[in-house]
Amino acid sequence: MTKPISGVVPPLAIPLKNKELDVASLERSINRMIEAGIDGLFVLGSTGEVAFSTSARREEILREATRIVAGRVPILAGVIDTETERVIEHIKQAEKFGVDGIVATAPFYVLQGEEDVYRHFKALHEATDLPIWAYDIPVCVHWKLSPQFLMRLASEGILSGVKDSSGDDVSFRWLVRMNEAAGHPLQLLTGHEVVVDGALLGGADGSVPGLANVDPDGYVRMWKAAQAGDWATVKAEQDRLADLMTMVFVKGVAGFGAGVGAFKAALKALGVFETNEMPTPVLPLEGENYEWVSAKLREAGLLA
Amino acid sequence: MTKPISGVVPPLAIPLKNKELDVASLERSINRMIEAGIDGLFVLGSTGEVAFSTSARREEILREATRIVAGRVPILAGVIDTETERVIEHIKQAEKFGVDGIVATAPFYVLQGEEDVYRHFKALHEATDLPIWAYDIPVCVHWKLSPQFLMRLASEGILSGVKDSSGDDVSFRWLVRMNEAAGHPLQLLTGHEVVVDGALLGGADGSVPGLANVDPDGYVRMWKAAQAGDWATVKAEQDRLADLMTMVFVKGVAGFGAGVGAFKAALKALGVFETNEMPTPVLPLEGENYEWVSAKLREAGLLA
Amino acid sequence: MTKPISGVVPPLAIPLKNKELDVASLERSINRMIEAGIDGLFVLGSTGEVAFSTSARREEILREATRIVAGRVPILAGVIDTETERVIEHIKQAEKFGVDGIVATAPFYVLQGEEDVYRHFKALHEATDLPIWAYDIPVCVHWKLSPQFLMRLASEGILSGVKDSSGDDVSFRWLVRMNEAAGHPLQLLTGHEVVVDGALLGGADGSVPGLANVDPDGYVRMWKAAQAGDWATVKAEQDRLADLMTMVFVKGVAGFGAGVGAFKAALKALGVFETNEMPTPVLPLEGENYEWVSAKLREAGLLA
Amino acid sequence: MTKPISGVVPPLAIPLKNKELDVASLERSINRMIEAGIDGLFVLGSTGEVAFSTSARREEILREATRIVAGRVPILAGVIDTETERVIEHIKQAEKFGVDGIVATAPFYVLQGEEDVYRHFKALHEATDLPIWAYDIPVCVHWKLSPQFLMRLASEGILSGVKDSSGDDVSFRWLVRMNEAAGHPLQLLTGHEVVVDGALLGGADGSVPGLANVDPDGYVRMWKAAQAGDWATVKAEQDRLADLMTMVFVKGVAGFGAGVGAFKAALKALGVFETNEMPTPVLPLEGENYEWVSAKLREAGLLA
Repeated sequence: MTKPISGVVPPLAIPLKNKELDVASLERSINRMIEAGIDGLFVLGSTGEVAFSTSARREEILREATRIVAGRVPILAGVIDTETERVIEHIKQAEKFGVDGIVATAPFYVLQGEEDVYRHFKALHEATDLPIWAYDIPVCVHWKLSPQFLMRLASEGILSGVKDSSGDDVSFRWLVRMNEAAGHPLQLLTGHEVVVDGALLGGADGSVPGLANVDPDGYVRMWKAAQAGDWATVKAEQDRLADLMTMVFVKGVAGFGAGVGAFKAALKALGVFETNEMPTPVLPLEGENYEWVSAKLREAGLLA
Repeated sequence: MTKPISGVVPPLAIPLKNKELDVASLERSINRMIEAGIDGLFVLGSTGEVAFSTSARREEILREATRIVAGRVPILAGVIDTETERVIEHIKQAEKFGVDGIVATAPFYVLQGEEDVYRHFKALHEATDLPIWAYDIPVCVHWKLSPQFLMRLASEGILSGVKDSSGDDVSFRWLVRMNEAAGHPLQLLTGHEVVVDGALLGGADGSVPGLANVDPDGYVRMWKAAQAGDWATVKAEQDRLADLMTMVFVKGVAGFGAGVGAFKAALKALGVFETNEMPTPVLPLEGENYEWVSAKLREAGLLA
Repeated sequence: MTKPISGVVPPLAIPLKNKELDVASLERSINRMIEAGIDGLFVLGSTGEVAFSTSARREEILREATRIVAGRVPILAGVIDTETERVIEHIKQAEKFGVDGIVATAPFYVLQGEEDVYRHFKALHEATDLPIWAYDIPVCVHWKLSPQFLMRLASEGILSGVKDSSGDDVSFRWLVRMNEAAGHPLQLLTGHEVVVDGALLGGADGSVPGLANVDPDGYVRMWKAAQAGDWATVKAEQDRLADLMTMVFVKGVAGFGAGVGAFKAALKALGVFETNEMPTPVLPLEGENYEWVSAKLREAGLLA
Repeated sequence: MTKPISGVVPPLAIPLKNKELDVASLERSINRMIEAGIDGLFVLGSTGEVAFSTSARREEILREATRIVAGRVPILAGVIDTETERVIEHIKQAEKFGVDGIVATAPFYVLQGEEDVYRHFKALHEATDLPIWAYDIPVCVHWKLSPQFLMRLASEGILSGVKDSSGDDVSFRWLVRMNEAAGHPLQLLTGHEVVVDGALLGGADGSVPGLANVDPDGYVRMWKAAQAGDWATVKAEQDRLADLMTMVFVKGVAGFGAGVGAFKAALKALGVFETNEMPTPVLPLEGENYEWVSAKLREAGLLA
């Protein structure tokens, strides 16, 4: 049985070079994060370009990531797709690489209701022995997984954890409380890299911060301080990381191009990624936007 | 060069049997619609379960549909997926079957901006010689293709047509006007089966009505009356079809399960489909909901 | 009993001068529309600045409008406000001026459910003998009045009509059909000035086009042609008006400032309004945006 | 000059009796909160029925609340209405009662853009000498006040504080950071009663918890523990209050009827309010829903 995953579990950003996976950069990035002390890795998340990746590209990313990680930390694999049968295909693919859990969203594209979402997760559970994590990301799938619904899935043994990117910290707090009352069947990770401190104070089991690709040390320090009950240090680290996260406030670009675009620009500036190439049809940050990201790295003491 | 597609172009509903494609029912349904006089067929649309279908299932549907149609009417193939590279894979698949055009949405799942959507369609155009139709369906992709944007794509030769399921008939009318002013580079089809009459009066080139799977004759009669300028008949047919369409007002079910669920129930009741099985995780309509659909068929004179 | 209102019922745009109601311009505008043959007037609609108007300003507008109209056409008065008791205050105000009906939205600002909306309209009905029109405008109140709900209100004698600005012409068609089946208890007017032709073909009782402040003759001609069953003329007028309506495509301005801003600019250019002043905090259209509006008037043959 | 407001600032819930303000209950409730040690009172907020209240009712509430408070704590007065001129009327009304600040939202009902919202707040500032607090509540006004926008208003001396009910704690954290960098021109209060602990850890100046009407002692204890840096106690109090807040999970009711409905039911059960009457058209909680609220009070040790 897989040991519960907690702590810092970054969603792996993907280096590209001439539209191909840049394996050397990927290796640098993964090793850098593991050496910083991360507790797990989330491969093929939204940050990890899952929605842009063909089946072949997903397979390549899983193969290289599992090879590089080599069991040093547990791996969660995103299996995100529009509907159940397509998600099950991705699960079968992930199973081949011995991942420690899979992360699935509610179905999307087609409008459905809560009982459809329930049968979706149930069908995934029947199709695999891997632990299933629910990915609550209404900004992408336009459906909110309520705490009550997630606890229902937990009570039937369908779910092992939740990655919360819902933007709804009130709902997340209730989920933490209900989970506690039920004996903690779920591991609960927040994806809101700017308010991890509050989530940890409130009882979250960890975080999935995209920004940890850029500054894994900061998130690891914050996690350790939280474990030690040193909330002043937790808050100070979070403040520093919240300021660093303003790298995404670039001009004339929004969404994925701004968020993951800034992470890739930072990783290039730090010498971790060779390029900051983005998947089609997104453009990389350039010029003053690239400079903005570099300035934020310097302010945070990450770049000379 | 492909002749412009106009008139009645139903989005093909998919018969299933024990989770497999029911080819015999598919054949009955396609032949029935062609014999009724439809002007084209849209395979792998939202109604056509594109979001539920694995790559293998999409291939099977394309193979069987093109085989059955056998050139009697033009075929548009949906190539709907989250982002560009995945859509291009579906285009390559569709090309093998000699379809007459492909139908693509804006990228979805990941948040993007208009220039990303522009580069997306441009990349599709560079990847194929097939005519490209834009599928404007914000309820699924959460992005509205504005008339100005569509005309920009038209002016660059990227688009050949639009399937409008935006729910925004004001915007569609402006699109019709702008398209007229630009020399009619686009074929413009409405997907709103309940107000096709108004769209035709306003200058639409045709319709893509899911309900035409159930009553192709009605839509063909409406189209012919519109061609003849007989608007009283157009309106009378539309009234009858609007009433028939209330088959989707079932109890306790919404979205795809209600809409396509009602069409499949009707096709089963009419003896066209052997089952009204739905793709996982959606349930078929049963009991009083199935009876409701049958009652609507009887009221419309389609069932004894 | 009030005679059913049908035909062209423009929502009255409000001329301002130094932040005060410009009565002379109001008189010119109302007389111009009545002389063009409009069938009624909707005072204090969204176009009519109801949301910007204090109670004193609302009273002034009602007093002047009823005085100027002087019974030549029926008047509907908007009584739009956040919740029931405040709406009832506006109803009492409107009653003093002998209007022919009041127009109310669902409650807004505070989140509620359908039964609250039901009790809201029921409470309005209990508070007045005036005919009540439901104003379906989800873009402002973030609640859609379903056809089924509206027919429930109709069946209880609570409603006399609907002004539909929902943007949902599918839903409107079903409302028309249900209303017909129930013996036509409601008068149904569309607010979508760009697709009035389709609404009339589909059975609407008339329209409430903001653009009719600018070109009342066009809408009156369209209505008369529809009454005569001359759909080619209906369509041709609508095409012309749809083109004229592109006056709202101004640069750098959206929403009320673009829509009503363009109408006021046009009315100033036509010499009907003395100024195109907008209510605080909205700015009037100026410079190239004002020129754009004027150009559209010239293209439509309304300005030399 | 008014001293900066921080700490616990409950939004005053309104007791009704036969549709009138129940002054005796109001007096009990205000005194109970002040004796518990609250730091201020927010009168006429969303919880405080501002949207349901006519001008006369607003005046009555302001008069009674200021009389009862009698300077013991500062008072913020909500002046919420659809557009600028109407809001200014409410400001003039509030000025008569010597309140310590006013709280205004972005304009709503009519669609506008950021520059309109800017001119709105600027016009309010020009109309009064009272400190202005921005109320960020997109669920009601459908507009998000970005941190950058709020800091722009702060830099021009237009704003003195923000009441954040945006549900977006990421944005709030950035606001806290930007405000700190700018020398703390704004007092920043969170309205999310379930995650006040995280907000305080992150640097918020206090909270505006509706639930503090029910349990003011809990929020006061949490605030004092935060001031003392005792985060374990802060978290423990918040956990207890998060559990208490589940009183709003009633059956068949949502929105205001569930949230404020539960608060009023609790205040009745506690003997603070004589009735749990709700403003038209909302129904009070009854039967099993009332029992549910009482059970939550007992679990929290507030009711025997």
